[in-house]
Amino acid sequence: MADNTASPLTSPTASPFHRALKSVLSVGRELLAKQKGVPKLVAGSAESLTALCQELLNHRGEASGLALAEEIAAAYSELGEAQKLQFLLSLANDFTVDPQGVVESAARYRDDPSQDNLEQIAHAVEAPRKKLFRRINMAPEGTRTLVALRGDVLALSREYPELKGLDSDLKHLFVYWFNKGFLDLRQIDWSSPANVLERLIEYEAVHEINGWEDLRGRLTDDRRCFAFFHPAMKEDPLVFVEVALTKEIPHSISPLISLERESLPADECTTVVFYSISNCHPGLAGISFGNFLIKNVVKLLAEEIDTLKTFVTLSPIPRFRNWLINTDLSELVTEEMAEKVRAPLGKVVEVEVRDALLRLCAHYLLNVKHGDGLAFDPVSRFHLGNGASLHRLHWGADLSHSGKTQSAGIMVNYLYQIPKIEENHEEYFNNRKINASTSLVRLLS
Amino acid sequence: MADNTASPLTSPTASPFHRALKSVLSVGRELLAKQKGVPKLVAGSAESLTALCQELLNHRGEASGLALAEEIAAAYSELGEAQKLQFLLSLANDFTVDPQGVVESAARYRDDPSQDNLEQIAHAVEAPRKKLFRRINMAPEGTRTLVALRGDVLALSREYPELKGLDSDLKHLFVYWFNKGFLDLRQIDWSSPANVLERLIEYEAVHEINGWEDLRGRLTDDRRCFAFFHPAMKEDPLVFVEVALTKEIPHSISPLISLERESLPADECTTVVFYSISNCHPGLAGISFGNFLIKNVVKLLAEEIDTLKTFVTLSPIPRFRNWLINTDLSELVTEEMAEKVRAPLGKVVEVEVRDALLRLCAHYLLNVKHGDGLAFDPVSRFHLGNGASLHRLHWGADLSHSGKTQSAGIMVNYLYQIPKIEENHEEYFNNRKINASTSLVRLLS
Amino acid sequence: MADNTASPLTSPTASPFHRALKSVLSVGRELLAKQKGVPKLVAGSAESLTALCQELLNHRGEASGLALAEEIAAAYSELGEAQKLQFLLSLANDFTVDPQGVVESAARYRDDPSQDNLEQIAHAVEAPRKKLFRRINMAPEGTRTLVALRGDVLALSREYPELKGLDSDLKHLFVYWFNKGFLDLRQIDWSSPANVLERLIEYEAVHEINGWEDLRGRLTDDRRCFAFFHPAMKEDPLVFVEVALTKEIPHSISPLISLERESLPADECTTVVFYSISNCHPGLAGISFGNFLIKNVVKLLAEEIDTLKTFVTLSPIPRFRNWLINTDLSELVTEEMAEKVRAPLGKVVEVEVRDALLRLCAHYLLNVKHGDGLAFDPVSRFHLGNGASLHRLHWGADLSHSGKTQSAGIMVNYLYQIPKIEENHEEYFNNRKINASTSLVRLLS
Amino acid sequence: MADNTASPLTSPTASPFHRALKSVLSVGRELLAKQKGVPKLVAGSAESLTALCQELLNHRGEASGLALAEEIAAAYSELGEAQKLQFLLSLANDFTVDPQGVVESAARYRDDPSQDNLEQIAHAVEAPRKKLFRRINMAPEGTRTLVALRGDVLALSREYPELKGLDSDLKHLFVYWFNKGFLDLRQIDWSSPANVLERLIEYEAVHEINGWEDLRGRLTDDRRCFAFFHPAMKEDPLVFVEVALTKEIPHSISPLISLERESLPADECTTVVFYSISNCHPGLAGISFGNFLIKNVVKLLAEEIDTLKTFVTLSPIPRFRNWLINTDLSELVTEEMAEKVRAPLGKVVEVEVRDALLRLCAHYLLNVKHGDGLAFDPVSRFHLGNGASLHRLHWGADLSHSGKTQSAGIMVNYLYQIPKIEENHEEYFNNRKINASTSLVRLLS
Repeated sequence: MADNTASPLTSPTASPFHRALKSVLSVGRELLAKQKGVPKLVAGSAESLTALCQELLNHRGEASGLALAEEIAAAYSELGEAQKLQFLLSLANDFTVDPQGVVESAARYRDDPSQDNLEQIAHAVEAPRKKLFRRINMAPEGTRTLVALRGDVLALSREYPELKGLDSDLKHLFVYWFNKGFLDLRQIDWSSPANVLERLIEYEAVHEINGWEDLRGRLTDDRRCFAFFHPAMKEDPLVFVEVALTKEIPHSISPLISLERESLPADECTTVVFYSISNCHPGLAGISFGNFLIKNVVKLLAEEIDTLKTFVTLSPIPRFRNWLINTDLSELVTEEMAEKVRAPLGKVVEVEVRDALLRLCAHYLLNVKHGDGLAFDPVSRFHLGNGASLHRLHWGADLSHSGKTQSAGIMVNYLYQIPKIEENHEEYFNNRKINASTSLVRLLS
Repeated sequence: MADNTASPLTSPTASPFHRALKSVLSVGRELLAKQKGVPKLVAGSAESLTALCQELLNHRGEASGLALAEEIAAAYSELGEAQKLQFLLSLANDFTVDPQGVVESAARYRDDPSQDNLEQIAHAVEAPRKKLFRRINMAPEGTRTLVALRGDVLALSREYPELKGLDSDLKHLFVYWFNKGFLDLRQIDWSSPANVLERLIEYEAVHEINGWEDLRGRLTDDRRCFAFFHPAMKEDPLVFVEVALTKEIPHSISPLISLERESLPADECTTVVFYSISNCHPGLAGISFGNFLIKNVVKLLAEEIDTLKTFVTLSPIPRFRNWLINTDLSELVTEEMAEKVRAPLGKVVEVEVRDALLRLCAHYLLNVKHGDGLAFDPVSRFHLGNGASLHRLHWGADLSHSGKTQSAGIMVNYLYQIPKIEENHEEYFNNRKINASTSLVRLLS
Repeated sequence: MADNTASPLTSPTASPFHRALKSVLSVGRELLAKQKGVPKLVAGSAESLTALCQELLNHRGEASGLALAEEIAAAYSELGEAQKLQFLLSLANDFTVDPQGVVESAARYRDDPSQDNLEQIAHAVEAPRKKLFRRINMAPEGTRTLVALRGDVLALSREYPELKGLDSDLKHLFVYWFNKGFLDLRQIDWSSPANVLERLIEYEAVHEINGWEDLRGRLTDDRRCFAFFHPAMKEDPLVFVEVALTKEIPHSISPLISLERESLPADECTTVVFYSISNCHPGLAGISFGNFLIKNVVKLLAEEIDTLKTFVTLSPIPRFRNWLINTDLSELVTEEMAEKVRAPLGKVVEVEVRDALLRLCAHYLLNVKHGDGLAFDPVSRFHLGNGASLHRLHWGADLSHSGKTQSAGIMVNYLYQIPKIEENHEEYFNNRKINASTSLVRLLS
Repeated sequence: MADNTASPLTSPTASPFHRALKSVLSVGRELLAKQKGVPKLVAGSAESLTALCQELLNHRGEASGLALAEEIAAAYSELGEAQKLQFLLSLANDFTVDPQGVVESAARYRDDPSQDNLEQIAHAVEAPRKKLFRRINMAPEGTRTLVALRGDVLALSREYPELKGLDSDLKHLFVYWFNKGFLDLRQIDWSSPANVLERLIEYEAVHEINGWEDLRGRLTDDRRCFAFFHPAMKEDPLVFVEVALTKEIPHSISPLISLERESLPADECTTVVFYSISNCHPGLAGISFGNFLIKNVVKLLAEEIDTLKTFVTLSPIPRFRNWLINTDLSELVTEEMAEKVRAPLGKVVEVEVRDALLRLCAHYLLNVKHGDGLAFDPVSRFHLGNGASLHRLHWGADLSHSGKTQSAGIMVNYLYQIPKIEENHEEYFNNRKINASTSLVRLLS
């Protein structure tokens, strides 16, 4: 039986392959140092990093090329804000396609639509930075660096729209590199390596993990955690989901994440609650894994534990209160009530507004749409797009600061029913139909 | 310490993740069966497989899409020769770009070279089959199927040049998917899994492995074997190299692969002989790993065993005799000798022609070039391209049938000297310079 | 997910811990070489090996002691027959208790039954060789050597009864070292390491495995294999069981082990057939694992595959024919029939004797007992002792040479019914009751 | 390459073998429940636990016996203090040898010293509780429970000397079970499982680990940690050593364990400092692993990193101050100085007493002996017994509370020189010679 209770004698980073790679890199560095004409890196300088990228794009030696790629990856992570922007803009502007070349190759193809001429256009429309990124990707930290780099691009692209082509190229590469066929699903528990676990603490986006004791509570007994990993980022999850096994659909979040809760034997549980899903890398935006992860976990748990029958989320409704405040509610509630439901936080959670708020929330989830005709709320878009249905609203379910300011303290269950998810998904996308339980729909009337 | 001496209790194919995936697939199959309009597969029919591919290209459901991809992968491997050709031609012709679309998008870009218009062309020049292949790649056997498919395409493309675009698309995908940053270097020895080892017997291309006893002899004591693997083809090596540790540069191949040889203690050895390199998948032609593999292994062994100082191959010269027979040798040897060196096999290996043949061989390796100015012999192209140098010729070194008919029984060492390989590589590609030892050059005079 | 598809980069025997141990050993060897008074080993000499053992018994240095232990382990395996006997006799006679010391310590205890005096006797009755064995056991191959040594002792002890004390000491040690709490259950399949698999070929005791293709057939698809391992003999199974999944209780052995059989999908199977159990080490005789192995495998398969309901063996009756020939059958069959059923092999398997032989066989299994009142047949003793019951006889089920000469071609199923095994076990041992199916009992009438 | 960066999909405790074992146990529990005459456990009652032990000793069924063993192991850990003592006393008194049986078997042996009669005594002097413990050891938590139980016995045995026989039996079993040949050396680093790492925090005996951040600092960069594990206690180290790589022999402990220290590249280090060795289980007292661990680590690091040449400890002198206070120092220092060196803590660390204290400390280490003629200080006994030598004293090296109250703030290096350790060890034990550096000896004059 595989022994997973401790690390091997030497840590992964000192494993023989890594040693080989490190040696190849060290040889590469020596060779690089001897080569004439290779620009020298000035730490923190975008310009010098750009020059290095230019060199890598045209470089020939394999070992020295690898050393160059590694140097670039390391240097990028040490740029200051301003230099980082300058470097990204230079990637966007200087490592881009030559419009003249595109036009000319297109003209040749128009005259003679041969395979060769087609490939000429394909080559002309591919920005040189894509080749550069492929080369950077060979370095040990290459993939991670490029994912971080796209994260930076996305954060800046609203302000600097000229970065969009750069984003588009990276996304295109990631679609290939992060093909679902390459991913690894792993259960994470208290016997997982500490360097993986510390990432969970770092990445948890929904309900903060307060240190190692809190983490342990989320990984043992009647709690589960699953994540997708990519082979080039071994100890770094792409997305993870935290799961509670319970005897009934929970009414609020706090008992789920409380350190004091009593643990249930797994085989007495009937319900699986996905109470937190975290995408770990902003740079992977648009490369969706969460959907596939949830489906795999549903199947896995259903097979492992016979008694589990109900699979739900316990989710926030993060844009609800914002919508509440900024919308004309006059057709929905009286003016007086409108004022009450928009009242400052502490005051809201009172019985008199309860019914009105739940009704408004049901309205928000069922009827408020984006321009594309799909659900407005981002969490709702995710789960309904996955083929889940709206199941139940819970009053006063998240009384944390963010729970109150974003979701007015309300939480909602999305229900995953394996036999219906593809049908729901089709109806949602083809007919803009939002599936919901009768009890939730009834709130509207 | 990691226990690698036996498989886990359940085999990898029954691992929980595979079970989850299998369940998702089985759900997908059920959902698929219920969906209207999905074409039914007729076993062995190219037409019906094409229809399925068309469906997958436009399919929405994730689980059912995965089931579809799996069905396509399985169905392809069961097509007969004729149907396979028909299917490949249909991929080439029906899943290809729309020239009109290309021309139109190019015209728009010419008028307005915006990022959006650029992406329009990029989209237009990407054949729909690339999306199809990305989807097939998500199925458990997807990557392997596509590698095999490209192998078939390459075998047929001489006769059917219309397959070239299909080949080009697959190669383009593989460049991304088989990025060196994703590969795993592993040592293979007698404690490796049998399902990996049987691949070595199957794939060994240079010196046939005659069953498990022979294999064992190549994996134990003073023998080593290293391979690259890809995460999506876990038990299937991409390329492997067989290595002998010796006390001197060997004069012929038979003592290296003999079952009766005496084994040497590793720490008495001084020399590493790469006596066989096998690329395992014709479908990965042009995606080169051998070069990187050799360099890693050189470094790895140099670090592991202090006494190892010399790293050479013992290689055939596979086109030498063919060249000998089809070339006018009149400027190189007398007519009488020309006749002798071309004489039928058994007769050749005689002392009287020895000097002439070695001289001709040195000439062949040093002076005979391709149209591109680089070495003519394919093995020579590989090692010189890697930065090795020609080191020594060995008379009567391979007296097997193929050894005599291809290389006139001669073998050659290519020498890998870490500090010189990039320089050699540069000189070779930039100046067409072939580096060789003085003793080998002296043969010419 | 643990990657079990290939060995690590360096093989287990070159793992860092083994390297550390090897270094400690190499230091130990040097230190040993410098020490005065340490006897020198003469290869193949029992006398010199005995002297080394004497030294180890009194040795102080840890590293050099380890080197000594290793030397002894290696030297033992290279002794010739005669020298081995001499060495074992010397272990039996020279490393034994001092009767005088026993008597004296007993006298002291009789006068004063204190804890101290008790420990004095305990110490006096423990032969010094037990300490010697504990020290040998620390060497890398120590455990394996001692297991082999006891195998030799057992083979010789009939002829040399003075070896019995030696056997008894080793067995006593093994009872501790091979405590069931220390064993590892592993499934063995075609992804297991070759160095483990070759042991199966070597050890299979019931139905010979003819090479790697045959082995593969026993490890894939609807076949399973499970083994117990001990941490100190990692790649060397202690006992393994071969299992076939079938749709019904099989009538004969040949379809089970045929290379041409068609494979069944596991989830269509209802029946688990244990068709071969092999104890791998004669030196572990009396330390029983097979019983526990079968129970674990029954539970494991019952949990893994829902459809499996019936768990049986298909077993030989190895002493049946011997009993047939050497017993007075006059109360059981006519004299004429007695002659027929005892007829030479080929002739026997005929319809006319079928009923008589089956009846005799049922009688043999149900009524023929050892002096201890338990079943006479050794295989029967094993399975009935485990709590199985006699289920069904199969005529002409094993027509191999051994099948005919030992079991008259008949095979029997022992049935394992989890809820009944302990009850059966109790009844068998307490009341000498052999549980059997009515159909089998009915054969007697 | 073995992937050690994350746990497998299902945690070890849910691995198939554990599931099999759990099933066998659950079957066992059912069978047990049905059996008549099995005493029922009353939680927290020593008497009822004793009755269960009596049952297990005579129990026959394997599965139900295993369930019984598991129940006993669990019940023991839940006994209160008083009940625990009562239970241990009952193990000591009721599961012990029958003196009459011993005397009688001894008498038979005296009359006829046969192997059989010898085994009779051996059997008679073995307390029945040893068989009981062997059976408890088969349960999943059996080994751990028995180790804890002996820990309790040792803590109580000063007050209750009648527990000594019980201790002696357990120690005897542990000598077999924890044979060095069965241990696993593992490096522990930040990629080790959290459930292993939390044990380090718990067990660290010398320099407390303050939470996970502190732990991380001791496992990364220029720090190393190694431990021995036993296969039956997989995630629970037996002993571990913490190591710092440095450029010189350190003068004090605080820079070694400071969270703010700067990390050194391993290949610039020359010195290995063993700054903390922790035995994890009081119940394993007298079964020494630390010695062997240090030697293995010395060799391992010497091989891994070429530049490491010096191997020292940085150790406390825990009984020094106690000795100082309770000894007549009149032959060593003036009365005035004696008073000063014994002064309360804060006052001591002053320059005026520095020389006197260092001289006294050298005297203490070199000349103060136990009754057995070996070193008096326990840490000194350990390292000198391992073959290390006294190397250097450091004034003001540990200014923590315990550092000052125990060692007067002084620390000492013990030097491990591989070529000399066995010689030192011999001289120390045979001639009571303590090896020390000249500089340390010179302090005396």
